[in-house]
Amino acid sequence: MPRSVRFRKMEGGVTAAGGFSAAGVACGIKTRKNTRDLALLLSDRPCSVAGVFTTIKAPAASVLWNRAVVGSGAARAVVVNSGNANACTGKRGEQDTAAMAIAAAGELGLDPGQVCVASTGVIGHPLPMDKVVAGVIEAAERLSPEDAAGAAFVDATMTTDTVRKTMAVRTVIGRRLVTVGGCVKGAGMISPQVATMLCFLTTDAAISPATLRRALKAAADASFNCITVDGDMSTNDTVLVLANGAAGNRRITRSGPAFEQFARALEFVCVHLAKRVVRDGEGATKFVEVRVRGARTDRDARTVARGIANSPLVKCAIHGGDPNWGRIVCRAAGCGAAFDPAKTRLRIGGVLAYARGVPAHTPLSQLQKVMQRQDVDLDIDLGLGKGRATMWTCDLSREYVTINADYHT
Amino acid sequence: MPRSVRFRKMEGGVTAAGGFSAAGVACGIKTRKNTRDLALLLSDRPCSVAGVFTTIKAPAASVLWNRAVVGSGAARAVVVNSGNANACTGKRGEQDTAAMAIAAAGELGLDPGQVCVASTGVIGHPLPMDKVVAGVIEAAERLSPEDAAGAAFVDATMTTDTVRKTMAVRTVIGRRLVTVGGCVKGAGMISPQVATMLCFLTTDAAISPATLRRALKAAADASFNCITVDGDMSTNDTVLVLANGAAGNRRITRSGPAFEQFARALEFVCVHLAKRVVRDGEGATKFVEVRVRGARTDRDARTVARGIANSPLVKCAIHGGDPNWGRIVCRAAGCGAAFDPAKTRLRIGGVLAYARGVPAHTPLSQLQKVMQRQDVDLDIDLGLGKGRATMWTCDLSREYVTINADYHT
Repeated sequence: MPRSVRFRKMEGGVTAAGGFSAAGVACGIKTRKNTRDLALLLSDRPCSVAGVFTTIKAPAASVLWNRAVVGSGAARAVVVNSGNANACTGKRGEQDTAAMAIAAAGELGLDPGQVCVASTGVIGHPLPMDKVVAGVIEAAERLSPEDAAGAAFVDATMTTDTVRKTMAVRTVIGRRLVTVGGCVKGAGMISPQVATMLCFLTTDAAISPATLRRALKAAADASFNCITVDGDMSTNDTVLVLANGAAGNRRITRSGPAFEQFARALEFVCVHLAKRVVRDGEGATKFVEVRVRGARTDRDARTVARGIANSPLVKCAIHGGDPNWGRIVCRAAGCGAAFDPAKTRLRIGGVLAYARGVPAHTPLSQLQKVMQRQDVDLDIDLGLGKGRATMWTCDLSREYVTINADYHT
Repeated sequence: MPRSVRFRKMEGGVTAAGGFSAAGVACGIKTRKNTRDLALLLSDRPCSVAGVFTTIKAPAASVLWNRAVVGSGAARAVVVNSGNANACTGKRGEQDTAAMAIAAAGELGLDPGQVCVASTGVIGHPLPMDKVVAGVIEAAERLSPEDAAGAAFVDATMTTDTVRKTMAVRTVIGRRLVTVGGCVKGAGMISPQVATMLCFLTTDAAISPATLRRALKAAADASFNCITVDGDMSTNDTVLVLANGAAGNRRITRSGPAFEQFARALEFVCVHLAKRVVRDGEGATKFVEVRVRGARTDRDARTVARGIANSPLVKCAIHGGDPNWGRIVCRAAGCGAAFDPAKTRLRIGGVLAYARGVPAHTPLSQLQKVMQRQDVDLDIDLGLGKGRATMWTCDLSREYVTINADYHT
């Protein structure tokens, strides 16, 4: 994507695009009282739908359900609960997911096959369906296109997230104003293997399901597949996009300027949301960009970038603001990709730390300064080819351990 | 190895076997005053030598040197420094390693090619060679076969280790009493890819270099290659064994009862030392055994065992004593090996937590009890085949982060 493309950023998330309304309510799944845990999204007309999901071999019931909905290419609504992932729950879990869709469809006057379902929270416990159904009824009553309703929606999807992560942009496609917006939840169990966490995107663009799928796949590869907090993939990872055509543009059905413009807007929103996930990573105090260049292949570059981004030793050094570049080079050398120390260069925050097998003649104080920034930039050139990859991650703090050791099943 | 084989455990480490003497002195490489940082080991006669080393693509100068010594099959001495890994130090690092061997050879009246070298500590700084040479001279004067000298040796190899890890056993081979002993250092940057950390083994058995190599390879596969603290492989990982024949047994040169007995003793010592490394893992408060059975292949079993053992989420849950079995199943499902939730069973401390796609009907209190033990036992049966693997690891604590965030380069 050329860097010069600009979009008009807007307030709001899932309700920024025309024709979408949302709600978020507290129905008692989460133990803390009056905490929102049930979210509902509705389009006032039929939508093209596309999704990318966890590649894990034990996906949650909701992922199986959504694959079927997305397969049909059409949807109207999304119902989400937090506080319980409805994963590793067997047949009963599948029945409960279907019941969530049926309850929402009943309230909204839709066919259950038009309703996507997502769940997040603790694994291995059955959903309290009486609470879920009561929540769906209340949420359906509160649906609204206002920004505040979009905010309530995202709040009701959050677990260990500490900030609300939404984004929307506006652009012109075929002389029509088109909006792409969305929200994301996720802070732990974030790994780069596929669309991580729950992300809901809406647009009023008119676009066919197949074309929407292509745009989403490209956007997810450039965003959610480039982030990692702890290298763990979830059972529930879901990215959904609903396109309802309310903008009135000529329906996008193939490649061309209109598709390019839409795909860029979607990628822009996805990259923004993906980076927000890392910044809100469990216990994170810093944002880290790992850029690998000069790898023998793109695949090698990705292996090295992911290896560095997932190294507890590297992440702890970044947390401590310690320019321990030896750990970074060591991880690059140890992760299986082609590597030659004599050809490798490492820059931290633009400052040369290591080149051609030996430390650079950079004063330690200068390296300390760039390592102590809140945004740390690691650029490693392997000097072997044209392979490139970028990963975004966060540091590893005592707070991460506290969150994950004290979390209760 | 049949479980019935027993060895007589002994006091001492590298000096337990006949004909070996050792020393450990403080020469000022480590910044803290009077902390031992230079170790020397000598056999009073020629030894067969074997070694296994890091597979990293940027090995330290000492690893390159030792590969050459081990290639010759014969050695007499080992010189080790801690406080500086002499890694990522280019040509100068190689010259410094050679100079260490030359200095030790000069003091001991040997050829430099008979001296193994090992270094551990910070990466990317040149060795202070004046201090190293002074240390070698002092250590050569202090060489002694006493247990205390063996203890001083291991102390001088330690970095973030909190306990001295030594082991020795005695057994009878060909009607001669044979001793196998050794020590290990290592607490962080421990990964299972190959012989991790520094381990020095000595034996008075008479055995040919090729046969010794075979025994060491098998012992390392069953021990050091089964442990992980943080999934990071080091630039300096080294396991060396010196066999000087002082026991007077008929030289072991091929398979047979004598070889089997020796190999078992060596494996017994290696497994003991490997587990000690994990127990002394950086910040570790718990010891974890991960056993995977029923995998489609041994390789799949190893992937799953390693995936679980390296998962920050699983390790934090164990730290907190929280029976969050969902994280364990999730990691097993997400690491790329063949997996079917409906065929999987997970036992924690012998108690069934998950079977056939759903939580077991085990009271939470019972699972909490086994998860809160100091030694946590995870047994996962994938129900797909005969593949097996075991990994040993530790929990992930706030202390781990403190150690690695505050460590200074």
